[in-house]
Amino acid sequence: MHDPHPLFPAADWDPSLRIALYPGTFDPITNGHIDIIERGLTLFDRIIVTIAINVQKEPLFSLEERIAMIEACFSGNRRITVGYTDGLIVDYALGNKARAIIRGLRAVSDFDYEFQLALMNRRLERSVETVFLMTAFRWIYISSSNIKNAARCRGKITGLVPEHVERALQEKFA
Amino acid sequence: MHDPHPLFPAADWDPSLRIALYPGTFDPITNGHIDIIERGLTLFDRIIVTIAINVQKEPLFSLEERIAMIEACFSGNRRITVGYTDGLIVDYALGNKARAIIRGLRAVSDFDYEFQLALMNRRLERSVETVFLMTAFRWIYISSSNIKNAARCRGKITGLVPEHVERALQEKFA
Amino acid sequence: MHDPHPLFPAADWDPSLRIALYPGTFDPITNGHIDIIERGLTLFDRIIVTIAINVQKEPLFSLEERIAMIEACFSGNRRITVGYTDGLIVDYALGNKARAIIRGLRAVSDFDYEFQLALMNRRLERSVETVFLMTAFRWIYISSSNIKNAARCRGKITGLVPEHVERALQEKFA
Amino acid sequence: MHDPHPLFPAADWDPSLRIALYPGTFDPITNGHIDIIERGLTLFDRIIVTIAINVQKEPLFSLEERIAMIEACFSGNRRITVGYTDGLIVDYALGNKARAIIRGLRAVSDFDYEFQLALMNRRLERSVETVFLMTAFRWIYISSSNIKNAARCRGKITGLVPEHVERALQEKFA
Amino acid sequence: MHDPHPLFPAADWDPSLRIALYPGTFDPITNGHIDIIERGLTLFDRIIVTIAINVQKEPLFSLEERIAMIEACFSGNRRITVGYTDGLIVDYALGNKARAIIRGLRAVSDFDYEFQLALMNRRLERSVETVFLMTAFRWIYISSSNIKNAARCRGKITGLVPEHVERALQEKFA
Amino acid sequence: MHDPHPLFPAADWDPSLRIALYPGTFDPITNGHIDIIERGLTLFDRIIVTIAINVQKEPLFSLEERIAMIEACFSGNRRITVGYTDGLIVDYALGNKARAIIRGLRAVSDFDYEFQLALMNRRLERSVETVFLMTAFRWIYISSSNIKNAARCRGKITGLVPEHVERALQEKFA
Repeated sequence: MHDPHPLFPAADWDPSLRIALYPGTFDPITNGHIDIIERGLTLFDRIIVTIAINVQKEPLFSLEERIAMIEACFSGNRRITVGYTDGLIVDYALGNKARAIIRGLRAVSDFDYEFQLALMNRRLERSVETVFLMTAFRWIYISSSNIKNAARCRGKITGLVPEHVERALQEKFA
Repeated sequence: MHDPHPLFPAADWDPSLRIALYPGTFDPITNGHIDIIERGLTLFDRIIVTIAINVQKEPLFSLEERIAMIEACFSGNRRITVGYTDGLIVDYALGNKARAIIRGLRAVSDFDYEFQLALMNRRLERSVETVFLMTAFRWIYISSSNIKNAARCRGKITGLVPEHVERALQEKFA
Repeated sequence: MHDPHPLFPAADWDPSLRIALYPGTFDPITNGHIDIIERGLTLFDRIIVTIAINVQKEPLFSLEERIAMIEACFSGNRRITVGYTDGLIVDYALGNKARAIIRGLRAVSDFDYEFQLALMNRRLERSVETVFLMTAFRWIYISSSNIKNAARCRGKITGLVPEHVERALQEKFA
Repeated sequence: MHDPHPLFPAADWDPSLRIALYPGTFDPITNGHIDIIERGLTLFDRIIVTIAINVQKEPLFSLEERIAMIEACFSGNRRITVGYTDGLIVDYALGNKARAIIRGLRAVSDFDYEFQLALMNRRLERSVETVFLMTAFRWIYISSSNIKNAARCRGKITGLVPEHVERALQEKFA
Repeated sequence: MHDPHPLFPAADWDPSLRIALYPGTFDPITNGHIDIIERGLTLFDRIIVTIAINVQKEPLFSLEERIAMIEACFSGNRRITVGYTDGLIVDYALGNKARAIIRGLRAVSDFDYEFQLALMNRRLERSVETVFLMTAFRWIYISSSNIKNAARCRGKITGLVPEHVERALQEKFA
Repeated sequence: MHDPHPLFPAADWDPSLRIALYPGTFDPITNGHIDIIERGLTLFDRIIVTIAINVQKEPLFSLEERIAMIEACFSGNRRITVGYTDGLIVDYALGNKARAIIRGLRAVSDFDYEFQLALMNRRLERSVETVFLMTAFRWIYISSSNIKNAARCRGKITGLVPEHVERALQEKFA
């Protein structure tokens, strides 16, 4: 799993472009993630949605399922691609000429964790900047975790995730 | 475990009554929980202490043990009953005509988590209100977790949990 | 200004009623306040919206203007009345047979301040409970202060305050 | 003071450029501010350092002094200009074709305040995005306020502000 | 007011002693402050309770009144003395051979402010360490500010401040 | 594992000495831990670095490895010793005549957790005081966890941990 190249030819992108990474587990992608990606497109030319593979945590959806769900959200948009890495996010950023890492903020405990992560990332690689965008207030209460919890208990998650993700969750918990 | 009816006939309660749910893991119930329940009784006519069953986490005490420990705290008080669910808390509230969910607040990280939970619950079911009560300052430092840790290491927990809970903890860690 | 009686005959209310105080500066009342009051009505029979007079801070609107603006929001609703006090909120609660003080929570710094206030109030008077309700996420970003700042700079505040409050703000800053 | 045009001809900037606003009181500018501005230049083509004039607060340095101190930090850099406004920051952003507002984060209470501000700004004007950058950990403890307090008590502030700002502070408190 | 010597001959103290500063406004001293001082005595040989004079804020009690109220709390205890300064706290610490500054923590917003202060103080003077002690939970809700607010409104403050401070507050607000 | 005696004869230390415990998991020790220990030595005569054994969590390094790594940091310094316990920290403090528990603070979520822990410890044993020291800002972003994450992904951790710890991490993840 050490192939650091994204599924789409990000490597072909013009080096003068402003490229940003948007890392996460995306297990699964939610409308909150999509909102941050769309905000990011007003600031950057290209965004690489990057699945961070954590070998210590078993995801609900496989890497392939997660990639497919993200691609289905942005199909046709040439400014977005999907990648994955089990290495350092900053190394993946460097390898793909991304000058920034995008993070969405929802709440104070988020911020606290993100603060430490951003400082650590800066220590690891000074040339990559972490940029925080504010999730729309419609989405501040959703996360992949509580979406999964609601779906597991058969709660109404319509409108919180794209339709194809809703169907995938229903199938997992059928 | 999908029977959403509490052990006592909450269903018989007069619909004009103000019924509230007090959900938690109660593994085990502490004096902090009891304090919140007693405060809740000044605001509501009936309280359903509701054990939220989390299939992903192994509790120290079985569901039956937890129910018995809670009942032993309030035996004789007709305004309190005990229930349990492995479904959505808001669904259990609706099914029992509860108009409110009571949550105790102790600290900032509590609040942050509770804030997201309350917003998510409201999204799932608008008619159920989340009400936050402040734990007495005598109890702000106790939780089921740190009570269990102290008991595991043979610390003095007298006065932090009811006597029968103290004995149950001593037996578990004997 | 030591008359602790509200403008409407709260004193006539049936003692079996559940009466709550909703204290604040209300300089001016916003849609966030109105949301909390409406949530409070699902839990309490009567609410006394109580202007806390702070002799050390000069408000934008006079006491009379603030009372009139609140009354205009709830005219015809016999379950809501308006009061004011320059004394302790807990004393005003006791004098009006209110068993609870309602507070709206929006953010962590709110909570922190509220936590100390609630503990202090409990120390001053044990029989009055503080109840926290969560502002709808549509309103978590508004406060009387930032509404006033926006109005002072001629920002669009339509939809954040009732129409008559919007007009009053425009006149103040004309 | 309603002239919303910056001192340098930002209006001449190419509309295809990515322009960001960096608003603040800058009373005075510190090394922490300069760090954020330099980070911002890796993401944006132009930055308008914008003094937000607060008619209700008396600054230590006059508007002219603050403008001069900021200009002395970036003289010769055509990508940075200085502006000021006593209106809404989002209006000033729109009038100068800025698509983003940059804010530096230092601590949790910062974040909390910024969160409300960003949501309010988005409500006022949806097309302007707020972007948060993390202050270098060398600067997380400095603010214009505590620099002024240290200078007032003759503390060593060398290395926390540019030299010309240090001299200006010494003259103010001589 | 630049005499940096405390009222009692701290200068005579043996340099091998562990001396700590406990700075604050003490307007007035509360039982929370006294609790922190007594905890500090288990760690340090001597404590200099140091009134930080803020020329920009008008206190309720004069410097002389505040000194007298603190002395009345600890009369006869040769390990505690009272000092004051309108300079930097770290300079006052150095001048009195104090190797540590004691700060009491009550809540998160406290911590945040204290964190910045401690980092700034360390920058100003590396040899003085800031030590944080936890206020007893009985006192986490009291501060000089809310004690004054309660006294102003004739609330019961018995048990929150020493008796002589209670009388002094009653006289101020008579 | 119930032998509560440290590896070095702390029991021989003079009872008039000020002894403090510095508990943690130390899996592995970082430069942030070392910074706190060195600060602690300015306040205490002796420090017992105490590995808290958590039977519920599998560490990366064995108890023996962790002890050896800590000892290698302070070899030759007679004022520091290493101990371990799977019991209550306060009991271990009492058994070793330590009057204080040292904790390092890095961020708000730290503080919150530490606050509850300190209050719980005080309840368990009143005679042991918790003392908080502030991690140098150079270290606020590092923890054993994120050091391990970085090492696992082959990130540069030079300068964040002692050299022998860096080598041990590289061997574990080789």
